[in-house]
Amino acid sequence: MKVDPSDFRRHGHALVEWIAEYLAGSERYPVLSRVAPGDVRRALPDAAPEQGESFESIFADFERVLVPALTHWNHPGFFGYFAITASAPGVLAEFLSAALNQQAMLWRTSPAATELEEVSLGWLRRLMGLPDSFEGVIYDTASISSLHALAAARELVMPDVRERGMAGRADLGAFRVYCSEQAHVSIDKAVILLGLGQRSLRHVAVDADFRMRADALRTAISEDRTAGVTPLAVVATAGTTSTTSVDPLGEIATICRREGVWLHVDAAYAGVTAMLPEYRPRFAGWEQADSVVVNPHKWLFTPFDLSAFYCRRMDAVRQAFSLVPEYLQTPEGARGVRNLMDTGVQLGRRFRALKLWMVLRHFGAAGLRAALNEHLRLAQIFRAWVDADPQFERLAPAPFSVVCFRGRPAGFSGTAEELDALNARLLDAVNATGEVFLSHTRLNGRFALRLAVGHLRTTDEHVARAWELLKQHLSQS
Amino acid sequence: MKVDPSDFRRHGHALVEWIAEYLAGSERYPVLSRVAPGDVRRALPDAAPEQGESFESIFADFERVLVPALTHWNHPGFFGYFAITASAPGVLAEFLSAALNQQAMLWRTSPAATELEEVSLGWLRRLMGLPDSFEGVIYDTASISSLHALAAARELVMPDVRERGMAGRADLGAFRVYCSEQAHVSIDKAVILLGLGQRSLRHVAVDADFRMRADALRTAISEDRTAGVTPLAVVATAGTTSTTSVDPLGEIATICRREGVWLHVDAAYAGVTAMLPEYRPRFAGWEQADSVVVNPHKWLFTPFDLSAFYCRRMDAVRQAFSLVPEYLQTPEGARGVRNLMDTGVQLGRRFRALKLWMVLRHFGAAGLRAALNEHLRLAQIFRAWVDADPQFERLAPAPFSVVCFRGRPAGFSGTAEELDALNARLLDAVNATGEVFLSHTRLNGRFALRLAVGHLRTTDEHVARAWELLKQHLSQS
Repeated sequence: MKVDPSDFRRHGHALVEWIAEYLAGSERYPVLSRVAPGDVRRALPDAAPEQGESFESIFADFERVLVPALTHWNHPGFFGYFAITASAPGVLAEFLSAALNQQAMLWRTSPAATELEEVSLGWLRRLMGLPDSFEGVIYDTASISSLHALAAARELVMPDVRERGMAGRADLGAFRVYCSEQAHVSIDKAVILLGLGQRSLRHVAVDADFRMRADALRTAISEDRTAGVTPLAVVATAGTTSTTSVDPLGEIATICRREGVWLHVDAAYAGVTAMLPEYRPRFAGWEQADSVVVNPHKWLFTPFDLSAFYCRRMDAVRQAFSLVPEYLQTPEGARGVRNLMDTGVQLGRRFRALKLWMVLRHFGAAGLRAALNEHLRLAQIFRAWVDADPQFERLAPAPFSVVCFRGRPAGFSGTAEELDALNARLLDAVNATGEVFLSHTRLNGRFALRLAVGHLRTTDEHVARAWELLKQHLSQS
Repeated sequence: MKVDPSDFRRHGHALVEWIAEYLAGSERYPVLSRVAPGDVRRALPDAAPEQGESFESIFADFERVLVPALTHWNHPGFFGYFAITASAPGVLAEFLSAALNQQAMLWRTSPAATELEEVSLGWLRRLMGLPDSFEGVIYDTASISSLHALAAARELVMPDVRERGMAGRADLGAFRVYCSEQAHVSIDKAVILLGLGQRSLRHVAVDADFRMRADALRTAISEDRTAGVTPLAVVATAGTTSTTSVDPLGEIATICRREGVWLHVDAAYAGVTAMLPEYRPRFAGWEQADSVVVNPHKWLFTPFDLSAFYCRRMDAVRQAFSLVPEYLQTPEGARGVRNLMDTGVQLGRRFRALKLWMVLRHFGAAGLRAALNEHLRLAQIFRAWVDADPQFERLAPAPFSVVCFRGRPAGFSGTAEELDALNARLLDAVNATGEVFLSHTRLNGRFALRLAVGHLRTTDEHVARAWELLKQHLSQS
């Protein structure tokens, strides 16, 4: 059962060829998988084989059963959700990382992973212009990053929560977390998990451009204070999931500073554009936040998963979570060396920094800026087409690489619901072509299509094709 | 900035060669890295390069700066913590998974990842003899698996916790979670995160073999009930981190059933041995648990990270966490198809099932059993050596592949503290050789060395060498 180097070589080289073909030629597949629910399950046996099988036979099943069941996030026609890219250096780094199998819970269990995390997060932070007062840590997802932000905020507001918890305590009042109506659902899940409850989350109204209204936030906090409810944190979003709107970070930061409330900025998608001089001003104010999350696995060409969490109060994260049993004590820990297990709920941590480091070096700052600018350019072209066509209408500003819009055929005279249904059919029809994949949202209660540019291989041609398909199918919807 | 297939091929093939050498020849490195804190950081620049760099130059720095800073979890002389293996099929699967870059939040965003998770977890479950009533889901770590177990238990005991939380509520009493004194620290972190507080966690006494005392659990629950404290969950461990002791699962399950309390079994390390007919009886009772966690990334040759969570009440997990915003609604979801985002706090999920599936097929059930038996055999050889040598003493039973022991030189007449210090020096001296790496724990307050067998390339020779080094350095300590 040992690793046979010659077998590994043979299969590894074959895989390199397959992946090279795949990364360069994913257009050969429909973007959205066409299998039906249960197809994969039914095509595979109910039990593991008794005897080991050859890699060839496993790989044959991979191609036969699994490949048709992939939705191709690497297809240049993938315009759904937030489009992402598994770039070549990122994929190679993950290959290496899997082989090294580092478990970076303690400095000594992987000095390389521990310190490269600090180095690469420092590089990324400086590229985005966040000050040195932010310490970084890598988590898997923005859900976990934001959870840690709110856990740290809870720790500061309820210093004995770690020991005493919240249940059955007459001495604790009510607490409130604020985010906009457009904030990500991960904030809801975080308050649920933390035992604060969804009722503690106040969804502050947005303006016509889907940005949190600072005046509404001020009023909400003031109402709560009057009612004896303690503000625990504000989550501002820089690049919301539906429309990529940016909350007024400067105003919100001022409110939070005055109120003494933790400010967490969810910049998971758009934060990387702070690398661009012309976009950086949109983030003004985030340097005053207590914590910021940016996801290189979203729009920085790093294979999923890698979420960068920056915090000016990492002491509060440590205070909340540091807990070192005897079997994990080390001489370095006793001397104050940083052990990553102290800054999180997960003890185990894989070597994610390697891919971020390789991606940053492979592209260089100039290359990253060029790639982001290209995606912004493509989205703005699409936006201009929508704006110029009387049969389409844009439903939100498009400040980054996402455009929200809908079709409205000439002479359409149905109800709002009928228009929603028409656009839902349009979306399904366009996605059914297999050439592109768009997703949707609802804005002011109305169905909106979303086109998100974010894959490195997406060109003018793919965006034009999406537009062509939309026009063509609108006339048939 | 597009992927150049010929570049990818060239670097990919070079990497396959490097990894093949590495996996087959990790003995060439010292197990535990010899760098000093700060070495990696100081060897790298403070900022990302402005222009992109060649893969060759990035890789040269990888070899120069990072390789010396790796602790080689893949070294056959790695006997620390729980030894693990990045097996060849697992590494290749991770390579593929990185390239495919599936984000399996919804069935439609990756039918392959969604259904293969069900299939491969079903295979693993049947191999271990857990009944079909357990539904599985893959998380990153056992910390997150156990967190979900306790969140689900909290949901059932406090059905309005999701909406109302716990703070400032006069109607809620106090709650209790029970685990043994030997349970993993992740249970502490979970109760902290969930807002229950460490005070809610009762560490039940263990017997002389470090197993939870069922009578002490019964007494604790009864005392709590009398005091008006509601039992929320019991966490039993099958393979504790220090000594791999197994709590009496049958007795504990009976208590939990009678009391109507959620039983979570942390079998992260040892659960896989339920594949072995002669070991399965040790797990009797876990089939009555509400949830079980087993980590294929520990002792099933799957690269880190992959934690398998099995639950008979996945409805409670969904009830706790399912929250589907408009932009993530799909026709399949409306028809009841399973979307993985509904069973967890993390929205994003990578394609982890691929490596589990490939590992299970590559080894086959017979191959896995043979590999586990080999590790058990090696550990028992070492245990016999310790037992036979008057200068060493075993400090705990060794039911699986971990042996806890210490040296006690002939004629030693110092205090218990001096013996601890001597063993700490012995550990450092042996680890300093670079040939092996052992970790430690404390048992009944005394320093204990731990030798854990779990790497596929570990042979009689490596175990013998560890023993030789221990004997040699004991005489000098």
